[in-house]
Amino acid sequence: MSDVAARRATAFAPASVGNVAIGFDILGFSVDALGDRVTAVRRDEPGVLIDRASGVAGELPRDPERNTAGRAVLAMIQERKLGFGFEMHIDKGIALGSGLGGSAASAVAAVVAANALLDEPCSRLELLKFAMQGERVASGALHADNTAACLYGGLVLTVGIDQPRVKQIPIPPGVRAVIVHPHMFLSTHEARALLKGSVELSDFVWQTANLAGFISGCYTDDLDLIRASFEDVVIEKQRQALIPGFAEVREAALGAGALGCSIAGAGPTLFAWAMQSHAAAVLAAMRLPLERRAIGVDGWVIDINSPGARIIK
Amino acid sequence: MSDVAARRATAFAPASVGNVAIGFDILGFSVDALGDRVTAVRRDEPGVLIDRASGVAGELPRDPERNTAGRAVLAMIQERKLGFGFEMHIDKGIALGSGLGGSAASAVAAVVAANALLDEPCSRLELLKFAMQGERVASGALHADNTAACLYGGLVLTVGIDQPRVKQIPIPPGVRAVIVHPHMFLSTHEARALLKGSVELSDFVWQTANLAGFISGCYTDDLDLIRASFEDVVIEKQRQALIPGFAEVREAALGAGALGCSIAGAGPTLFAWAMQSHAAAVLAAMRLPLERRAIGVDGWVIDINSPGARIIK
Repeated sequence: MSDVAARRATAFAPASVGNVAIGFDILGFSVDALGDRVTAVRRDEPGVLIDRASGVAGELPRDPERNTAGRAVLAMIQERKLGFGFEMHIDKGIALGSGLGGSAASAVAAVVAANALLDEPCSRLELLKFAMQGERVASGALHADNTAACLYGGLVLTVGIDQPRVKQIPIPPGVRAVIVHPHMFLSTHEARALLKGSVELSDFVWQTANLAGFISGCYTDDLDLIRASFEDVVIEKQRQALIPGFAEVREAALGAGALGCSIAGAGPTLFAWAMQSHAAAVLAAMRLPLERRAIGVDGWVIDINSPGARIIK
Repeated sequence: MSDVAARRATAFAPASVGNVAIGFDILGFSVDALGDRVTAVRRDEPGVLIDRASGVAGELPRDPERNTAGRAVLAMIQERKLGFGFEMHIDKGIALGSGLGGSAASAVAAVVAANALLDEPCSRLELLKFAMQGERVASGALHADNTAACLYGGLVLTVGIDQPRVKQIPIPPGVRAVIVHPHMFLSTHEARALLKGSVELSDFVWQTANLAGFISGCYTDDLDLIRASFEDVVIEKQRQALIPGFAEVREAALGAGALGCSIAGAGPTLFAWAMQSHAAAVLAAMRLPLERRAIGVDGWVIDINSPGARIIK
């Protein structure tokens, strides 16, 4: 029985919201309501074989070098100089191009599953580095906002890239995230490519004040400060045109009592934070402007605190 | 006796370090070892009369509109529609152009002293707004990093300008600030004018990560994270050429065990954070490269926590 367990493992990795309005490329939070599942089977042949992908996978590359899950596990194999390999099955629960960190989730689930089959398991920080290598295949950039949130769970800050340091930031009691996923595809590559290469100094000061206020508010349960600071003045204005109805959705969320509302990662998914008592009303308000445009919508109210990626079988 | 007390008051306002490496224009901490004193005397004539300035005042403008203390109290008189005025005596303990928030301290001491003579005193947040108007005369920009730190004491974040929100951030136990003031004059105006009007997106991400890490480290006594995040990658590289020996001072501080070292405000004063056990060695190490250049130096090791500006007489 233990021999069987050591040859096959399935991991779940949650969706995540990157950027979180004021933390471009550095802040993310987990969305445990949906996620990807990866089953890894240890095999004597070296390398990674992606046997198949299911779920909302669409056209996932089967070449492991070009697949986020494959690339992440290859990074582990190389770093650990493993003399064996893995066969992997990817069950996508997160739609590609949704802005919900699907690439990160596949990479994270893959390394967590493979790690369960190692004779000497890696630390969580090592797994983060491997998963970042995988996520890079999809986003074209090395950053950890989705990956760290997905792996660790909750609201997560990452400082540094080569030697990332991860900090889980507390969520004030009663705060919930509202997630609205319009049924559209947005390429993370394209959403990054449209960003200007620099930030006005005045916007830099404003955004850093908001970031510092937001984080201080989280540590001190200061909802007033979180609300005042919950505004992206740098990235959102460059990307909002990609999402039909964004301004209306945001206004509707704030009108219904949300603490703040912005774009999840590169979009098109939108998110808000709200107190539990307002969350259902915020969700209903955010749906309307999209449904009026005949855009299909999935929506969730979630507890941001979650255990992150984990072995489920 | 109470009548006398209501007609004359003297306030002390501490020096302060603005920017704090990673919080350009938004973070500051108080330096209680030195400060400015302002005595206000209530008079029936409206407006502000600056009767004289003493201490290290140099050529302080006597026109209240052009004097930071005068302008701050004029802002109070206008906002409160006061039917009386103040005569003021400014006793400068902070050298002009030192980077230690002397303009902010004069403005803060002035409004705190004048406030003690009002029939209905202002809140601290109102005093902050008045003092910011005064400090603007000197710096040419409206920001609160020095002003808020001076008024509130300790490590202080300010979010917003028109409706500033102030957050006092805890300092991990045992952390001290080391302050080294080289005897040179640097114009805040000029030090601002040389800054580029924009920030590279990659530097923006790096700096925001450092800011978020620094603040998270302060809330959680995570010295390792504070050390890793204590690096200004945006402003310091543009200003360090103004300060002879800066790179050597910084290297010496880090070599002696400092958590981080950067420029105080617009300079030329330099500061480091260090554990109490290392602070004296850090101070000695930071002095050397300056003294080797025949630059006179004042130095202090201080407890960052302080009560901020206060009535002393």
